[in-house]
Amino acid sequence: MDTKDLAEKGLKLRKDMVGAAAVEQRMNTLGEFGEPLQHIINAYAYGDIWSRPGLSLGVKSLAMIAMMAAANRRAELRVHLKGALKNGCTPEEIREVLLLVALYCGIPAANEAHRAAVDVLSEGKAI
Amino acid sequence: MDTKDLAEKGLKLRKDMVGAAAVEQRMNTLGEFGEPLQHIINAYAYGDIWSRPGLSLGVKSLAMIAMMAAANRRAELRVHLKGALKNGCTPEEIREVLLLVALYCGIPAANEAHRAAVDVLSEGKAI
Amino acid sequence: MDTKDLAEKGLKLRKDMVGAAAVEQRMNTLGEFGEPLQHIINAYAYGDIWSRPGLSLGVKSLAMIAMMAAANRRAELRVHLKGALKNGCTPEEIREVLLLVALYCGIPAANEAHRAAVDVLSEGKAI
Amino acid sequence: MDTKDLAEKGLKLRKDMVGAAAVEQRMNTLGEFGEPLQHIINAYAYGDIWSRPGLSLGVKSLAMIAMMAAANRRAELRVHLKGALKNGCTPEEIREVLLLVALYCGIPAANEAHRAAVDVLSEGKAI
Amino acid sequence: MDTKDLAEKGLKLRKDMVGAAAVEQRMNTLGEFGEPLQHIINAYAYGDIWSRPGLSLGVKSLAMIAMMAAANRRAELRVHLKGALKNGCTPEEIREVLLLVALYCGIPAANEAHRAAVDVLSEGKAI
Amino acid sequence: MDTKDLAEKGLKLRKDMVGAAAVEQRMNTLGEFGEPLQHIINAYAYGDIWSRPGLSLGVKSLAMIAMMAAANRRAELRVHLKGALKNGCTPEEIREVLLLVALYCGIPAANEAHRAAVDVLSEGKAI
Repeated sequence: MDTKDLAEKGLKLRKDMVGAAAVEQRMNTLGEFGEPLQHIINAYAYGDIWSRPGLSLGVKSLAMIAMMAAANRRAELRVHLKGALKNGCTPEEIREVLLLVALYCGIPAANEAHRAAVDVLSEGKAI
Repeated sequence: MDTKDLAEKGLKLRKDMVGAAAVEQRMNTLGEFGEPLQHIINAYAYGDIWSRPGLSLGVKSLAMIAMMAAANRRAELRVHLKGALKNGCTPEEIREVLLLVALYCGIPAANEAHRAAVDVLSEGKAI
Repeated sequence: MDTKDLAEKGLKLRKDMVGAAAVEQRMNTLGEFGEPLQHIINAYAYGDIWSRPGLSLGVKSLAMIAMMAAANRRAELRVHLKGALKNGCTPEEIREVLLLVALYCGIPAANEAHRAAVDVLSEGKAI
Repeated sequence: MDTKDLAEKGLKLRKDMVGAAAVEQRMNTLGEFGEPLQHIINAYAYGDIWSRPGLSLGVKSLAMIAMMAAANRRAELRVHLKGALKNGCTPEEIREVLLLVALYCGIPAANEAHRAAVDVLSEGKAI
Repeated sequence: MDTKDLAEKGLKLRKDMVGAAAVEQRMNTLGEFGEPLQHIINAYAYGDIWSRPGLSLGVKSLAMIAMMAAANRRAELRVHLKGALKNGCTPEEIREVLLLVALYCGIPAANEAHRAAVDVLSEGKAI
Repeated sequence: MDTKDLAEKGLKLRKDMVGAAAVEQRMNTLGEFGEPLQHIINAYAYGDIWSRPGLSLGVKSLAMIAMMAAANRRAELRVHLKGALKNGCTPEEIREVLLLVALYCGIPAANEAHRAAVDVLSEGKAI
């Protein structure tokens, strides 16, 4: 597939998962300087990896939450907490992942992730 | 529940998931010095968190693989790759998680996790 | 010991170290969603590990500061800087740990930890 | 060389690279408590390592940006983005490093570093 | 560009930088399971990012060394130490980057990276 | 103080703590390439920071163990486990630190550190 088509296909899925307004705001903030990174995100992350079959979007989102909590990447954690709700995960499923984070990455990682989750879940009225 | 009962309950699940021989070897290696840590693992990790309902053991295993690859913890990654197979995950599902690792934690994290996965999957004849 | 008693015992020590108001605010913020994590903190962290003899609370606090600076966990670092003062550590002792952080985890880790320490120490009138 | 002379020599280079006002503000914020750390920064980092010949200041700055993005150290990343401009790096050169960050440390690391870069480059009118 | 062409173009550059035999051994070790990851490396990392103009391959290699030392990724560090020599970096330039690692990521990161560098440089007869 | 004297003073303390043979072997392995790093270790780490009064060598060692376990730096962790014994720490004190690691940095960090500790303590006949 041509990489431009891959980027378009990915951008569509990304907007579905994260929300069109949020995606556009991000792309605008970084402007021309950010175009190659946006291409990586749209084409390679969403157009290729997220679009692959073999694992449901919901389970992918739960794996992303685990990963971002472990890697101490707060801004991205929030994106994928929202994405998890969009992809049909329940607050309980998200919490079970964060409790594994507590035991296997430590309490501080779980603490920060819980705060982010409570924020995102309240905004989305999920709790 | 009494913490001793919690530890016993957890040890049972841990042996189911990781294999009784592997668990006993680990507990023996660390001897008396390692007893409080083994209590944490048996009672708090397996007796409490892993035993909670709300998310299947298979999805928990996939989240663990994501977390351990992100956190650069190779020995534990292998344990949970084996656990994932025991908990019914397919090689393909494991791979989809590792491809998210590549994009969101970087190629070197995915490279190491792929090597571990190929080792564990070959031993288990899963590939 | 029953895990409920462990949690109660731990909550008492936690409030002694971190301050009752701060602990209650935290528990309220996370609400029902946060209850299993609060149980981990109260029962397993404070009720079990922090309550063990064998190392003074002050030295445990210094080890926590080292760990949280290394692990890049700022919110938790502040909690344990306050806990260190409560547990009788002097500003000088805290600084000696942060200078080891500078050499062994790098200047940026020490910079952030110094900023947090100066904040916490000024609030507590310790400097 | 006497360590006091090393610190003076380093402080001069540090002020050249980071700006005298920014350096003084930092040293004042941390006060007496921060003096040993400032000595490490002035004497050992700037007086010794940054002053060594063998690699241009510009390439050192690009390596610093790579390192700070990888290590998730945002405040220090901003310092060295500014330093990179002062040391003659172009926005394009900085971006190429951040794209390597995307592939080898993951998209979230590159995202945060892009946001910091766009901020710093706009302030400096470089973009 | 079609992603297959991107992967081919990238594979060529990758073999130039890392050595054809080493690349083929890696691709064989991971087998069919590793194909999507190899596509990420060939097409997205080497075909896209490494192939971009705007920064010399040598400086990119030095940034990679900084990043891999910071991120504690030893196997990948060795790959890029070899790549740095291939891309024309001198042992002295590599060392200057590793000394920045010592001050900004801590002595243990620099220690491990020095050991890897001395190994790779001796094999390549560069020291 | 002249930096050469600082390095000599530090080297003496380093050999006391880590063992003269081990230090010399390390310095030889890295040869001329490693001289600036050895200067950082001898002069800045041991000559300056480790030599400062204000915190006992034993407590500094315990903080180092916490830090190295958190930072996932295994080789350096072993060095400082040995140093802790030399500085008068007991196996029990070391274990209490590692149990904090389990709760605050996660079980895998504590697992690896326990394995290293059991090795080092057996060699030193401390357990």
